[in-house]
Amino acid sequence: MRKKIIGIIGGMGPLATADLFEKIIVHTKAACDQDHLRVIIDSNTNIPDRTAAILHGGADPVPELTASARGLERMGAELLVMPCNTAHNFYDAVQGAVSIPVLHMVRLTAQALRERDVKRAGLLATDGTVETGIYQRCFDSAGIELLTPPPEGQRAVMEMIYQGVKAGRMDYDASTARRAMEDLLERGAETLVLGCTEIPLAVRLYRLELPVTDPTLELALGAVRAAGGETA
Amino acid sequence: MRKKIIGIIGGMGPLATADLFEKIIVHTKAACDQDHLRVIIDSNTNIPDRTAAILHGGADPVPELTASARGLERMGAELLVMPCNTAHNFYDAVQGAVSIPVLHMVRLTAQALRERDVKRAGLLATDGTVETGIYQRCFDSAGIELLTPPPEGQRAVMEMIYQGVKAGRMDYDASTARRAMEDLLERGAETLVLGCTEIPLAVRLYRLELPVTDPTLELALGAVRAAGGETA
Repeated sequence: MRKKIIGIIGGMGPLATADLFEKIIVHTKAACDQDHLRVIIDSNTNIPDRTAAILHGGADPVPELTASARGLERMGAELLVMPCNTAHNFYDAVQGAVSIPVLHMVRLTAQALRERDVKRAGLLATDGTVETGIYQRCFDSAGIELLTPPPEGQRAVMEMIYQGVKAGRMDYDASTARRAMEDLLERGAETLVLGCTEIPLAVRLYRLELPVTDPTLELALGAVRAAGGETA
Repeated sequence: MRKKIIGIIGGMGPLATADLFEKIIVHTKAACDQDHLRVIIDSNTNIPDRTAAILHGGADPVPELTASARGLERMGAELLVMPCNTAHNFYDAVQGAVSIPVLHMVRLTAQALRERDVKRAGLLATDGTVETGIYQRCFDSAGIELLTPPPEGQRAVMEMIYQGVKAGRMDYDASTARRAMEDLLERGAETLVLGCTEIPLAVRLYRLELPVTDPTLELALGAVRAAGGETA
């Protein structure tokens, strides 16, 4: 059976795009180049900042998001993915712009956790993503309770992202963020959803070895399956 | 000044494509997503094996290579790159198929070494790449002497690529390959050109800490500059 071509609406940011691309490759069962799935990527760095648009009335990202989606469809993509949590606030506009399916990273993550019988999860994300309520809605629909950190815990997560990872500080003291994460687990979260593409880096850099779920990985696995590939 | 859009003819293999993409991102001076260069990638895994076409009369990769090149141009790419050494055997056909410039990885590497005043270099590559003579021609034109390992050294390099890296063996004994590399340095090579995208992985995995030149990195730097970006 001919496999489908995956299109990636990327550039939000570029490294998160590269991370998804690599996860698709590594998690496809393949013995040679030709066994891999064809992937077309538009790392479109002209897409305006999603958080700024939602929280501070910044430029609307929809025109560039839909232009990329249409360009990928014209180039032959048969399904689309967006490796950016916050961009999913604009999902309906992107899906409405094309006639091919757009996978939904947050819904896929919720479905994956439901299949693993998870009843309660914790969310680690930026203020922008929390504000949109996108994780809350998708997890509600999947029947999974979603816990968020209290204000001081949320501040610690934001600080770890901005003062730690984004600032490139290897020696950042993540103990307050770790306590916020452990607190979610103590409140009954079975796993911590890494709802910002910077957080998997923090987990690795600051050795936060706790039970986590990576939506980029869930999106990669979902894309491989939707394209008719075998996951590895 | 508006920056140019980079198109990557990829899929040869997919991981080498991801490696080039990441090197473009990491080596671009940028403070936020929007500072990065726009990159469009066709990881076209339908391109037939280049070495098989050259050495064993396998399927011609030119139709798929030129189809990807034209597709990227239609999507807005303003310059193209091919992260595969062996594919450069078909460079003229690809450049002839489009009206935008196609950067030449091997020429860029030779130019970079000439700028660093290198007079003599060693080549580590697959039998297929050595056979095409592509490195030899480009280095001759740049006035750099290119040394290749003798037959038993070439066999050790091939073995390290196929029995070591491609087989995923972390415990592979690379001492014979290391001796072939040291032999090139003793014969006067000032640097070893990693003319196969698997070899940078071998260098890291087997701790072959010798003076090397990575053509993928030279291609990334050349692409950032050609697009009007600032290298970091």
